Amino acid sequence: MDLKEFAHRISIRVRTFDIDSQGVVHNSVYLKYLEIGRIEYRKSFGYKILKNGMFDDGLKVVVVHNSLDYKSFAFTDEILTIYTRISWIKSSSFEFLQIIVNEQTKIIICEGRGVCVNLNQETNKSEPLPEKFIKEIKSFESNLNIIS
Amino acid sequence: MDLKEFAHRISIRVRTFDIDSQGVVHNSVYLKYLEIGRIEYRKSFGYKILKNGMFDDGLKVVVVHNSLDYKSFAFTDEILTIYTRISWIKSSSFEFLQIIVNEQTKIIICEGRGVCVNLNQETNKSEPLPEKFIKEIKSFESNLNIIS
Amino acid sequence: MDLKEFAHRISIRVRTFDIDSQGVVHNSVYLKYLEIGRIEYRKSFGYKILKNGMFDDGLKVVVVHNSLDYKSFAFTDEILTIYTRISWIKSSSFEFLQIIVNEQTKIIICEGRGVCVNLNQETNKSEPLPEKFIKEIKSFESNLNIIS
Amino acid sequence: MDLKEFAHRISIRVRTFDIDSQGVVHNSVYLKYLEIGRIEYRKSFGYKILKNGMFDDGLKVVVVHNSLDYKSFAFTDEILTIYTRISWIKSSSFEFLQIIVNEQTKIIICEGRGVCVNLNQETNKSEPLPEKFIKEIKSFESNLNIIS
Repeated sequence: MDLKEFAHRISIRVRTFDIDSQGVVHNSVYLKYLEIGRIEYRKSFGYKILKNGMFDDGLKVVVVHNSLDYKSFAFTDEILTIYTRISWIKSSSFEFLQIIVNEQTKIIICEGRGVCVNLNQETNKSEPLPEKFIKEIKSFESNLNIIS
Repeated sequence: MDLKEFAHRISIRVRTFDIDSQGVVHNSVYLKYLEIGRIEYRKSFGYKILKNGMFDDGLKVVVVHNSLDYKSFAFTDEILTIYTRISWIKSSSFEFLQIIVNEQTKIIICEGRGVCVNLNQETNKSEPLPEKFIKEIKSFESNLNIIS
Repeated sequence: MDLKEFAHRISIRVRTFDIDSQGVVHNSVYLKYLEIGRIEYRKSFGYKILKNGMFDDGLKVVVVHNSLDYKSFAFTDEILTIYTRISWIKSSSFEFLQIIVNEQTKIIICEGRGVCVNLNQETNKSEPLPEKFIKEIKSFESNLNIIS
Repeated sequence: MDLKEFAHRISIRVRTFDIDSQGVVHNSVYLKYLEIGRIEYRKSFGYKILKNGMFDDGLKVVVVHNSLDYKSFAFTDEILTIYTRISWIKSSSFEFLQIIVNEQTKIIICEGRGVCVNLNQETNKSEPLPEKFIKEIKSFESNLNIIS
């Protein structure tokens, strides 16, 4: 994957409590890192995340799938850069594609994918993403696959 | 402290992700263990904890103080017993006194104290605990200090 | 998926700190639950997990892939049952297939897959799983796909 | 407490997974925030934290006591500033005094204290802090209580 295609990135520092009994970042912690990337990605459009974990765009978007491919280990106090882009968008869902890289060594630590679905606020059933949302992603992403 | 004075206990198992970069249970994780003890203590009276983290007793009780004295280390897969009692009760507050013991070796791992305050649902200001609450604790605890 | 095919299961209780700002179990926490299932699965063969997060079988097995499909939400104090089985085994790798079910409602909360690889202790390169390991899994699993 | 007395500070952002079922930062998470402050405080002297969670100053310093006074709530996406200073130092121990403040509103969220003890690498018994360590703290802190 070409890091230049990732329009958003943010760095975090691995903390002592992110480490597990094997002495490396625990495999579940990467989902926290990926979520930081996803939220900051969306915030970069000017939206705010509210106390209830939803954005002030009026949408109810939830994660329905996550996958992680662990490529290397990460250790205490390392700085990791989380590269985030949206790879595809469908009527009511889209996918975050993300890469976590050790900032100093440039080694890829982890690749992640997360599929999000837009839900109806009342029924919790999937419903089409609004045009505004799709337009914003289209104009931000250079290599977006629009699946109709 | 005499473990016989602790009317409630529950055991948990240390998990790989509770361990930190020093190879021991992270100092913050003990507050999770203590909270498990406190919630199960209250549930033992027949109350249920609701989705919003409050009990179905109609009270809004929050933690205002926690302290921990670390006595020994805990490691992956060990079983820890959390001993819980209420040590004192005042008009609108009370204290959980807790000891965490390695179930196998009986070594004390940690001692904890947590002070809780009863808040008014609307104003969030402290207000007296209801008589029913105090009565329940009184009849459950053998060595309760009632501070008036 | 047929739950009867899952030879191992263990139940956990959702704790207040597993919940996130959306009021449901955070998507990363399920990887902790899955790991509990995987470790208890392996322990059920009589192996012990050591302080360093490895088993006393002399192997260095690490997770290289995790995926999660979120089917429903889980809330504070619910009991979740983690069903675990090994679905396939190759020369140096194998896959955990897992389902997390709400114990009371029997609703499926989450499905997970985790691919593990056996590494050489010194070189950290993948190497064939020992015969003993494969034999144990074979005799435990009723529906194991052996990929040669 | 006078914030001007705190020679070190660092800001963190509250993340969705720091929130608990009550919709606020979980009481255990503040110990993570405090640890970030303590580690960055020590790093500000030029020391590095190693993979095993110890600093490269050759010391084995562990936390033996933590206390937290919760003053107000913190919510998703807020920026919190962690003010850290060492308040007293004894032969083999010292105390971190810390305040967590909402960066925007300046409201105090939490006050924390952590007592650390210097251990002998082999015996794990307390032993006097080296002169160099005490000298460094002395010259950094404007209001240090030296207890002999």
